[in-house]
Amino acid sequence: MGTADVTEETAGGEEKPWGEVTPEAARRLLVAAVEAFAERGYHATTTRDIAGRAGMSPAALYIHYKTKEELLHRISRIGHDKALEILRSAAEGEGSAAERLSAAVRSFVRWHAGHHMTARVVQYELDALGAEHRGEIVELRRQSDAAVRRILGDGVAAGEFDVPDVPGTTLAVLSLCIDVARWFNTEGRRTPDEVGALYADLVLRMVGAQK
Amino acid sequence: MGTADVTEETAGGEEKPWGEVTPEAARRLLVAAVEAFAERGYHATTTRDIAGRAGMSPAALYIHYKTKEELLHRISRIGHDKALEILRSAAEGEGSAAERLSAAVRSFVRWHAGHHMTARVVQYELDALGAEHRGEIVELRRQSDAAVRRILGDGVAAGEFDVPDVPGTTLAVLSLCIDVARWFNTEGRRTPDEVGALYADLVLRMVGAQK
Repeated sequence: MGTADVTEETAGGEEKPWGEVTPEAARRLLVAAVEAFAERGYHATTTRDIAGRAGMSPAALYIHYKTKEELLHRISRIGHDKALEILRSAAEGEGSAAERLSAAVRSFVRWHAGHHMTARVVQYELDALGAEHRGEIVELRRQSDAAVRRILGDGVAAGEFDVPDVPGTTLAVLSLCIDVARWFNTEGRRTPDEVGALYADLVLRMVGAQK
Repeated sequence: MGTADVTEETAGGEEKPWGEVTPEAARRLLVAAVEAFAERGYHATTTRDIAGRAGMSPAALYIHYKTKEELLHRISRIGHDKALEILRSAAEGEGSAAERLSAAVRSFVRWHAGHHMTARVVQYELDALGAEHRGEIVELRRQSDAAVRRILGDGVAAGEFDVPDVPGTTLAVLSLCIDVARWFNTEGRRTPDEVGALYADLVLRMVGAQK
């Protein structure tokens, strides 16, 4: 992924990456883990690598995280919580189904562009989670899916949208937004906001929104 | 990725995975490399792992591939050649722009669903290629992008499509199809053909195709 990615979180407009994680040492270790996993993959990374990157000893890491899998789980959990929060707040927001779908796509895209390194780790290393943690994450994904499906269903019920296959279209909308994390920064001459605006327009076309 | 992925290539309707690679030992090593990279990531895989998976010695591997990067490059090259062939043959095919775009999406999706393990390795391990090989692959991607862009441009010129942002929409269409490799098989209750048909319809909506 390279050095260009290191400052990813600031691209999303946040002051301090992973600010919700305390104490400061635990936060620094999480930032280091995201970088290491993104660069070399989960299986090629050791807790020693992560501690070294954070300028700490392996023993200091162990105070905060018992295993490498626990680090991945924290990253995945925070990432999925954030994704669900974005989609839920759009689903439950004010306005027409088209306005809510547009808002959901814009913020979901913005998050995946601004946090593309985190999003890649979260998406590509899902299989490295233990069974229990994986089940928990799969449930969060199910809820994210349900939030988008609800907006689509509302739009169809209101006669605003024409969607022959609501579950399939929901999957496609989420997939389109998630994949921004893969290509953003490598082929991107667009800001996260610009991609969000373009994608909101494309998604409204996908659901046959009345102009 | 687990054992469910191991038979991926047959899902795409091919008789023998990587049949274009000869001799047989070189082919078996490539199949083993795809599986190992998909399961553990490129950096966590050794050439010894790959040889062992193929039931061969490290010395036997070395006859066919000098380095692990050479294996990744072969996989990436064959995958990208195939992608380009699919998109070019659609771009240069008969029929209206809508028919050609629909054909391109259907076969591109079918390939990514049927070869999702290969496609993931090809997409997610791009940064592990050496500079020269990476440049070669980036050029193939540029040509794939150009093939889709041409269909969109033709459709706009013929008054068939309404596309305010051709480069952005091209990127979104390719991204939507490529991401099938990430979710297919994990959330998929659909066949590759069914996903292809759904996506062709969604993409025609994205470009505002006249019905």
